[in-house]
Amino acid sequence: MFVILVYDVNEKRVAKALKKCRQYLTWVQNSVFEGNISEATLRRLILELEKVLDLSEDSVIIYKFQNTWYSERQIIGIEKNPVDFMT
Amino acid sequence: MFVILVYDVNEKRVAKALKKCRQYLTWVQNSVFEGNISEATLRRLILELEKVLDLSEDSVIIYKFQNTWYSERQIIGIEKNPVDFMT
Repeated sequence: MFVILVYDVNEKRVAKALKKCRQYLTWVQNSVFEGNISEATLRRLILELEKVLDLSEDSVIIYKFQNTWYSERQIIGIEKNPVDFMT
Repeated sequence: MFVILVYDVNEKRVAKALKKCRQYLTWVQNSVFEGNISEATLRRLILELEKVLDLSEDSVIIYKFQNTWYSERQIIGIEKNPVDFMT
C-alpha cells in the first residue's frame, strides 16, 4: 500500500525519528515521508518509532491508501526530493 | 475531493501561508492540512498561495484523492487537531 507519514516531534527526538522513518520510507519534505510499504513492515516501523518518541508529546499521522487510483500529487514551488510513488 | 497539503516554507512567509491554508483546509499538525475541497476552490487556494510564497525557495505538496475508499488514517502519539475527513 501507499503511505504518507507526517510527524511533529520534539527537537530532542526528531533526529532519531528521521533516521527511523528513512529506513522504511522516502523523505520528501520537512517532516514528510512517502512510499509503498506492506502492512507488516509498517507495523514494524510503528513499533520502532514508538520506542524513540514521547507518545504524550509527539504526533505522527500515517495516511494509508490501498491504491493510488484517482489520486494525484501536485508540487507548488520547489520539489525537495522528487519521487513518483503515485504514478 | 480529499486533499492533504504539506508545506515547507521560509519562516519569513510561513505565517501568511498558514493563514491562507486555514481559510480553505483544516490544520492538523505542524505544516499539514487536510480537507474536502472542490477542484475550483483548490485552484483559488493555489493562486493565492503562489502570491505569498517564494516559489524558488518554498515547497508545497498537495496530495489529491478523488475518493478515500480503501484508505485509513492512523495516529501515533497525540492528535494535535482531531478531524475525520477520511471516515
